Amino acid sequence: MALQIDEARFERTFEEYSEIGGTENGGLNRLALTDADREARDRFVADLRALDLDVSVDEVGNVFGRRDGTGDLDPVLIGSHLDSQPYGGRFDGQLGVLTALETVRTLDDHGVATDRPIVVVNWTNEEGARFAPALMGSSAFTGRATVEETLETPDEYEGTVTVREELERIGYDGDRPCEPGDIHSYLELHVECGPELDANGNRIGVVDAIYASTWLEVTVRGESKHAGPTPMGERRDAFAAASEAVQDVLSIPERIDDESVVTVGEVHVSPNKRNIIPGEVTFSVDFRSATGEVVTRAKAAVERALESACRTHGTSYEIEEIMAKGRTDFSPAVTDAVEKAAESFGYPSQYIESVAGHDAMPMNEIAQSAMVMVPSVDGECHSESEFTRPEDCLAGVNVFANATYTLATEP
Amino acid sequence: MALQIDEARFERTFEEYSEIGGTENGGLNRLALTDADREARDRFVADLRALDLDVSVDEVGNVFGRRDGTGDLDPVLIGSHLDSQPYGGRFDGQLGVLTALETVRTLDDHGVATDRPIVVVNWTNEEGARFAPALMGSSAFTGRATVEETLETPDEYEGTVTVREELERIGYDGDRPCEPGDIHSYLELHVECGPELDANGNRIGVVDAIYASTWLEVTVRGESKHAGPTPMGERRDAFAAASEAVQDVLSIPERIDDESVVTVGEVHVSPNKRNIIPGEVTFSVDFRSATGEVVTRAKAAVERALESACRTHGTSYEIEEIMAKGRTDFSPAVTDAVEKAAESFGYPSQYIESVAGHDAMPMNEIAQSAMVMVPSVDGECHSESEFTRPEDCLAGVNVFANATYTLATEP
Repeated sequence: MALQIDEARFERTFEEYSEIGGTENGGLNRLALTDADREARDRFVADLRALDLDVSVDEVGNVFGRRDGTGDLDPVLIGSHLDSQPYGGRFDGQLGVLTALETVRTLDDHGVATDRPIVVVNWTNEEGARFAPALMGSSAFTGRATVEETLETPDEYEGTVTVREELERIGYDGDRPCEPGDIHSYLELHVECGPELDANGNRIGVVDAIYASTWLEVTVRGESKHAGPTPMGERRDAFAAASEAVQDVLSIPERIDDESVVTVGEVHVSPNKRNIIPGEVTFSVDFRSATGEVVTRAKAAVERALESACRTHGTSYEIEEIMAKGRTDFSPAVTDAVEKAAESFGYPSQYIESVAGHDAMPMNEIAQSAMVMVPSVDGECHSESEFTRPEDCLAGVNVFANATYTLATEP
Repeated sequence: MALQIDEARFERTFEEYSEIGGTENGGLNRLALTDADREARDRFVADLRALDLDVSVDEVGNVFGRRDGTGDLDPVLIGSHLDSQPYGGRFDGQLGVLTALETVRTLDDHGVATDRPIVVVNWTNEEGARFAPALMGSSAFTGRATVEETLETPDEYEGTVTVREELERIGYDGDRPCEPGDIHSYLELHVECGPELDANGNRIGVVDAIYASTWLEVTVRGESKHAGPTPMGERRDAFAAASEAVQDVLSIPERIDDESVVTVGEVHVSPNKRNIIPGEVTFSVDFRSATGEVVTRAKAAVERALESACRTHGTSYEIEEIMAKGRTDFSPAVTDAVEKAAESFGYPSQYIESVAGHDAMPMNEIAQSAMVMVPSVDGECHSESEFTRPEDCLAGVNVFANATYTLATEP
């Protein structure tokens, strides 16, 4: 017999949180460690305390709420992140944190004790939109990044303020050591942020892997000259070379693996004046594939694209890899718990590989982990029009609560 | 017998002015109406006054210094601009203003009177780098733009401060009406900012025309989505479309007229995050050709490039023409004076068409005009490494002084 969540309570809670940093168009503008993030955290801490959970905040601002188990066992961690992209959606991250909160409320409602403790977590700065890189809190927690370098990270927009200063300002510079201890397992619910579940008519995705990925930063150097009197043949136009290379880069998936994706999302042109030939261009390349082997081939293809375009245009280039992640394979023990919970409700479900990175990725390095996904309508994500149907949200929370119960009770 | 300038004095003056807003790398960072521009203007006014010229400043900050003629005749205007690009060169503009100043000093040295008055001018904001568009002072002076719209132009970087406020702040909000009255002729010396004179081994360019040109502002609209989980086939990537169109746009000269030039110098990507598919891209197109007919064909080709790229990528576009200039044909009477002066010194010279716009372009609409050009080494321009050899600068000033004398004395 499956545990049933309180659907009305969950929806009310979700609506209330969505007002914090909510935008006119129904999205969320709640960048990490801003006043809006503080307000969401304060509400979250109050909600954890109302459940008599043992609340703690670690050195990088990750917030934990612990519900004791009946045995002296390693805890099950459940959660996600409350921060958002600039003018992003209300489902990405927040849905997972509130699902974890509702899970504990549901256990309390039913007077259910678990063998293992359950710890609800809100990770600091999953998005990486204001402070790079993404997955900051979970990376520091799992030892992928040091606490010191995390705290010294500057604001991407202003460059003057650091994570440390903003944590102090909003009162989330906690004293709990940022280290995991022993953990039994980690489970996270997230919207798919892609179109597959919606297109297949499935309500639950059992995530058994996350794509490998790389972030490259490409710089092309040419020569700034007056746009008028410099004949076409005598130019070393950095944007001419960069845009040619970008065309080539964007065709890599169709040439080497059509399930891979590549994005050139960030571009800076210098001096960026309409009557001056660009002297320098930097652009990002985000490449993701099911296997690390394809990512390696893609990096070589990016290099060839730059070589060719720069030869044509008399420019030079540099490529720096600023992030590299191998493929993540989640734990069958955890995905089984999710799959069985979905079956017990009769929800149509499927196994799915996540192309997006999530906090479950670093967590999988220290504890058996997996994720639950719910459909994103039309795959909309990282925009205000991101949407997951209410019935799919509720299905996800029901599955999540029961999978968590399984993880916290089965031997 | 030609008038000889005082070469040592000219070089000293040029060096001294070059320190005002001078950069470490030997360039000039003297954006219009900044403190550096004020300092250069103050020095210029002092130098005009030292020659007993009648100094006046008009409503848009153009500075004039009048040397009377012996007859009651229309004046000859000579000059250029003291403002620079951000981290531009020290020759662009400044050389022309100091050439006009040296011309009057030379006439005084030799005790030479002219029939017509000679008016030395420094035009406000030729570059358009801080306040758009370029050729601001001369355009207001000749009635191409109204004084009111000129004064209300906002700063391109900050957007909060206007031309009017900055003129007041630096004390160049003059009371002379911004209108030309009757003018006999206009002559301006400028560095070529292109490679032709240098490549041909000529020291003097007799400029008899300026290219037609257009400035287009292109906006491509797609859809912002998460860079990870959105399959390549379901993207409406504004930068994928824009970079494809740019490749096409940059090939227009080789397809329709290989003496034309096209530049995409300014690019803005939104939201400009590495893990978000670009939802909107704007880019500039600067196209210049010897004839207006080619410019018209080029605009149609830009439209076709956008149509094609946007069809492929499921994006939409808009093209706005923010500046359009027809071909300028200068006056043979004025170019003759320049050609003869070059001959009298035995300097190798040639006729040349300017691809860059200059203040002589609006001036040509109200008075017979022409320009003298001196070589830019390697065509360098709008950068700190812009360079004109000292002997070529001096040749240019000699030619200019004598051509001015001819214009101011011949019937």
